[in-house]
Order: sequence, then C-alpha cells, then structure tokens
Amino acid sequence: MKVSKLLTKTQKQDPSLEVSTNAKLLVRGGFVDKLGAGIYTYLPLGLRVIEKIKNIVKGEMDNIGGQEVLMPGLQPKESWEKTGRWQVPEMYKIKDEDYGLGWTHEEVVTPIAQKFLNSEKDFPKSIYQIQTKYRNEPRAKSGLFRGREFIMKDMYSFHLSQEDLDNYYEKVKEAYFRVFERCGLKDFTYYTLAAGGAFTESFTNEFQTLTDSGEDIIYICDKCKFAMNKEVKADKCPECGHDVFLEKKSIEVGNIFKLGTKYSEAFNFKMQDKHVIMGCYGIGISRLLGTIVEVFHDEKGIIFPKTVAPYDIYLIDIKSNGEAEKVYEMLQGEGYEVLFDDREKTPGEKFSDADLMGIPLRVVVSEKTLKEGAVEIKKRSEETIEMVKINEINNFLKEC
Amino acid sequence: MKVSKLLTKTQKQDPSLEVSTNAKLLVRGGFVDKLGAGIYTYLPLGLRVIEKIKNIVKGEMDNIGGQEVLMPGLQPKESWEKTGRWQVPEMYKIKDEDYGLGWTHEEVVTPIAQKFLNSEKDFPKSIYQIQTKYRNEPRAKSGLFRGREFIMKDMYSFHLSQEDLDNYYEKVKEAYFRVFERCGLKDFTYYTLAAGGAFTESFTNEFQTLTDSGEDIIYICDKCKFAMNKEVKADKCPECGHDVFLEKKSIEVGNIFKLGTKYSEAFNFKMQDKHVIMGCYGIGISRLLGTIVEVFHDEKGIIFPKTVAPYDIYLIDIKSNGEAEKVYEMLQGEGYEVLFDDREKTPGEKFSDADLMGIPLRVVVSEKTLKEGAVEIKKRSEETIEMVKINEINNFLKEC
Repeated sequence: MKVSKLLTKTQKQDPSLEVSTNAKLLVRGGFVDKLGAGIYTYLPLGLRVIEKIKNIVKGEMDNIGGQEVLMPGLQPKESWEKTGRWQVPEMYKIKDEDYGLGWTHEEVVTPIAQKFLNSEKDFPKSIYQIQTKYRNEPRAKSGLFRGREFIMKDMYSFHLSQEDLDNYYEKVKEAYFRVFERCGLKDFTYYTLAAGGAFTESFTNEFQTLTDSGEDIIYICDKCKFAMNKEVKADKCPECGHDVFLEKKSIEVGNIFKLGTKYSEAFNFKMQDKHVIMGCYGIGISRLLGTIVEVFHDEKGIIFPKTVAPYDIYLIDIKSNGEAEKVYEMLQGEGYEVLFDDREKTPGEKFSDADLMGIPLRVVVSEKTLKEGAVEIKKRSEETIEMVKINEINNFLKEC
Repeated sequence: MKVSKLLTKTQKQDPSLEVSTNAKLLVRGGFVDKLGAGIYTYLPLGLRVIEKIKNIVKGEMDNIGGQEVLMPGLQPKESWEKTGRWQVPEMYKIKDEDYGLGWTHEEVVTPIAQKFLNSEKDFPKSIYQIQTKYRNEPRAKSGLFRGREFIMKDMYSFHLSQEDLDNYYEKVKEAYFRVFERCGLKDFTYYTLAAGGAFTESFTNEFQTLTDSGEDIIYICDKCKFAMNKEVKADKCPECGHDVFLEKKSIEVGNIFKLGTKYSEAFNFKMQDKHVIMGCYGIGISRLLGTIVEVFHDEKGIIFPKTVAPYDIYLIDIKSNGEAEKVYEMLQGEGYEVLFDDREKTPGEKFSDADLMGIPLRVVVSEKTLKEGAVEIKKRSEETIEMVKINEINNFLKEC
C-alpha cells in the first residue's frame, strides 16, 4: 500500500478526548477512530492488526479441537430468563422488543450443544467464535481496554466428567500461553487465580498482562511467580508458602472458567441423567490490540511485534528518482507486506510517521544510499541503522 | 474434518418453524441454527461458506481500490439526527440509552471520510466493511433472505465530481458482476433499474437473482434483457423500445446507489466550497448464502458451486479397512478440503448426507472399489459415477 493512497493520516497532537495511551497512539497513528465512549471504528491499519491477532487465536483454538461458529448478537429475552441473567446491568436491551445484545454467549451456545450432542460419543466438544460483543459499560475511558462494543473470542466446552473438563482446561491454558507468546506478550503475562464473577461461583483463572495503565492489581509471589488477584489474596503463597508478594498493575487479556453445571442445569442439558459439565474461555481481541500498544511503545509511538504488525516494512522514498518504487515491487514480490511512503513530505515527517505507526522495519531509499547501491534498514525496536546493498536486501531481511 | 468429530448432525425432517427452502436445507444440513425469527447462528459448515463468500467479495472490493475498515454496530443518536433518520422504523434502539443499532453506515462513514479527506488529492476514496447489521424487520420468514441480524458488505465512495462518481460506479458494477459470477450466480442475476429508497430519491440499480422464492418481481425486456423493478416499470423498454417484458420473481443480492450530496450536506462535508459527492454499494453476504441454496438445490439437498462449498470433497468410507483414511490424508496433502465420513453408518445414510450438504465431489472408498485398486468419484451436480484408480485420483480431480 502506498501511503499517498491510504485512507488515513497520522495526527501530531493527542486526541483531546482520550486519556489512555493505547487510544492516544492508535488514534494518532490512524488505526482507530472514536465514535463514542468505548466505541471505535477499526481503520485499515487497525483492522490489519485485528485480523492478525484473530488468525493467531483462531489457529490455536482450531489446534485444540475448537470448532468455529458465529452466534448472533441479538438474543431473545426468554433465553436469558432461563439463566436468571436478563436483569444484569451489563446488558443493552432493545427498546420495545424482547431482545438484548449479547455480552457473552452461554445462553445461545448451550442450547446449540444440546441439540447436537445427544449421545456419549459426541463428547467432549469445544465451540468457539470470534464475534462482536456489546456491554453497557459505565466507565469506558480506557480506549480499547474497555469497550461498549468489542471483539472477543469466546469458547465453550462440554464434558461428561469433571476429569475430562480438567484435562481440557489445561490444554486451553497452554493454547492461551501460545497465543500471548505469539502476540509478543509472554514475558509480561501472568496466569492468575481469580474470584468467579457473573459466570460461576468458584475460583477462575485469568491471564493478566503487566502494564501501568492496567485497571487490575495482581500479586505475584516473589519466589515462585504464582500470581493471584486482589479478591483472592492470601497471606502466604498457596504454591510455595512464601509470604512476600509484588503488587503490580495489569490488564486482563484472557480468562478461563470452569462453569460446572450452572448453564446445563438452566437448559436441562443432561447426558445419562447427569448434567453436562461446561468450561468457558475468553480472549479480548480488541483489548489485545490495546494491550500490545500499552506494552510496546516509546515516546515516538508504537513498536509492534512483527507477528501482529499491520505491515512488515515501512519503505521511505527520499528523492530516489524511481528506485524506491523498484524496491517496493521487489519486496512485495518476495512476499513482504510493505507500506510505501511515496509522499512529497520531508524525511523527518516520514521518519516520525514510521515511528508512530510502529512498523517493525524501516527501509530508506535515498540519493545518499543509492550512491552506494544500497538502502538503509533500521529496526523500530533498535537505534542501529545498517546500510544494505540492494541485491542483499532479501537475505538481510530474512535474518531479521 | 472427520464427520465423526463434527459438531453438527444432519436432520431428515424439515424444521417445523421454517417455510423457506434455503432455511430448511441449511438447517437440515447443519449449516445454520435458528435462534429467533431472522436470527441465525452460523454453524461450522455455514461459517465456512460465509468465509468463502466474504473472501470473494473482499478480493473484488480490494481490486477496485476499496479500503477495508470495521465500523461499530452501536451508533449514537446524534449522528442519525443530523441526517433525519433517527425515527426510521428499521432502527433497533437501545432502551434507556441514546444509541441505535446500525442498519447502514452513512452516518458513521461520512464523518470518518471528512476527517481524513481534506485536500483535493485525497479524492476519490472508497471505504468498505464486511460487518453485522441489525434491522427491525416486521416479516422475517424467508430464512437467510431477510434477517433481523445479517452480514453485509457495504462500501461508500467519495468524489469531487459527478463524472468521477459515474466512472467509479461503472467499476463497482463490473466488480459486482465478478462477485456474482464467482459465486456461480452469473446466469441468474440481472442488473436492474430500481426506485430509490431511504437512501436517495433518484433511481438506483440493483442486482436481482432469479428464484421462485424471491420477494421481488422484476421485468426483463424480452428482446434486449434490460431489467427493471415494479416501481419503475415503463411501457416500453428504455433501451430498445420493445414492449414485451417477462415478469420474474427474484431476490435482491446487491444494490448500488448514487447518493449525491445527501449525506455530505448533512455533515457539511465540503471540498473547495462544494459538497462531496457520494456513492454507496451493498452486497448481502448472508443473503447470498441463502440465494445460492435457493438457486442450487434439488430434492436431495444443496448443490454448492465449488467456489463457495464448505469442503471440496465428501469422502466416504465403506468398510475400507483403513484405506479411506489413507486417501483422506493423501487428498489433504494435495491441498483439498475434505470432509471425511468415517462414521459407522450405512452407505445410504452417508450418501444422503453428502447429497444434503451439497459438497461438489463425492469420493467413495469401499471393499468393492478397492478390489480394483480404485475409488468411486461422483459430482454432486451429475449422475455419472466414475471408477478412478487410487494413483490417478489427483490427476482426475484436477480436471474436475
């Protein structure tokens, strides 16, 4: 894509109505546009990142036998009355109609599973979707951290025994770690013990990513790295008995719950006279975009991990007399996703846009570099600039 | 995917609450599940078809310079008051909140374009999304033809002159024909002159696919194939002057509008003191799924065109003693998408499921075929069954 053709433009100034770093940078870079509190449009650059995150999540869910569906947002009141959740404050309700907007999907997925899982050999099954959720959020000031409309991956599993759920729960846990690792967040993300919520009454587990702008606080055992939420804070580490904890701010990027029989009871979903045992597993896709930006940025802008960057390369033409265009075509031919800054702007303006957008590699083709038959390559995450001969670019990039 | 592992099962009986053929077959085949009138879950098979249709549409929109975004469903009242459309009956409104649910996106996309298109050289631009829409539909009895929640591709273009819009409009028209051609619908789809609606007051154009279950009626000139809707029915063909028309039932699968300055005036979106000129272009993605099923089915079930089929091959194991599993792996290795019926069911049950699901090619591995070192291959759309030697399967399939 040529920057001259791109729908969006960067902004130098922070948007006046945003307080969170993720929203400020994502708005300034042209990744998202705010329609209202907690309501964003994903612009072309932002949507590309969302799609990459979705593909990572989808791959890992498929890998543990998840079957993808797409459930409706518009949900009838009667389903929610069966579980006693029609009156929860999170639900947006449709005026003059007996519909609410789904902020979670137990009320839809349980009857679907009940319809198709009707013999022992149909178990276990795991059903997931990547879908837009709506939630009546009184405070929606944290950019992509807390949306009134947001994109979520939610998965639900159905089992005939607690042991089978326990085994699958561990598989999901591992798959979640792979998701966060592939998004570059491994070193910042803790698996925590948390209190249940509207979903279940027992303990649950969360994946919490450390960031100073997080809305949660977690306590990490100074010795064994066991982590827990405020609501379950014990005096001593339940794992190693140590009694010193580090208090850290964090954001919940995923959660996994053992639902037990709460929803199978509500819908009378039984197999051989016993209620089916369920688990549910969420990852906030749009929240992950916000989290990645909070964790990976500096004073110049975003620093995307390459797995989720909107483009691989930001290519800059500085009076190259058509040579940059040739490099653009060569790089695309090699399969790289390239954003080509072909605008009539100063080098400084182009450099600062490249930094703001956070694309992992910056390639500059200028009069100066061409004198040496070369280009300049710089990683967004490092200060070093390397001169690379034009016929060696591809080999060089393969090493990056 | 092995049928034994698939979430869904087929149903022999028509679902009691469906009257339309598309919904009956899609429910029976396990493609969709009905949550309420006009509200469906896309099950794994259905979602695969939806994804294929989306990819075709996306490719063609990218090809004419469309830039993909994802706009919110939840939309503030104030945007809709600017255009005078807050009170339209189509809009679901949120109870106790100043939000409605988007049934179209002019109110969101126009301010976005206004934000980024601020010099002459930023024009023209074309912005599209594939997104879930909500519409308060009093009659929602036609399965995927008319949803209260549905998936739509909507594109909006912005121009500085009528001529530029006119030129782009023709490009979109051609792209739409390619979409319908790639979905197998070319021979059934007419480009019609239609009356404007809530969008514009001038004439518009629709793409109407002939089907007896369609909700619209179109008039096709018996001589030159010019087509028009009931609302604009002239006595003589405006193209050739002929006065005999064929009356046909059809379903609108796409529409394109010249919006003019209606929305740029509402948002005061000007360039050089003149209001920007807009076009808008819709394709119903979920409606296309319904349309394909209406057009392509017989008494046994669906007959998917191969471009949008959920799988390429339905592979049936009839006591093959493990040989079918080898063919399954071979076919997957060759890049085919295979649904492998490994269940302990009678051949008849497997054949009827293959027919119902409408997968283009059926491959049978049985004791009988193995005696000749072969498999049986049958196209869903033809009666002929061919014996193909196992080592010639791949070459044979390449010809299909």
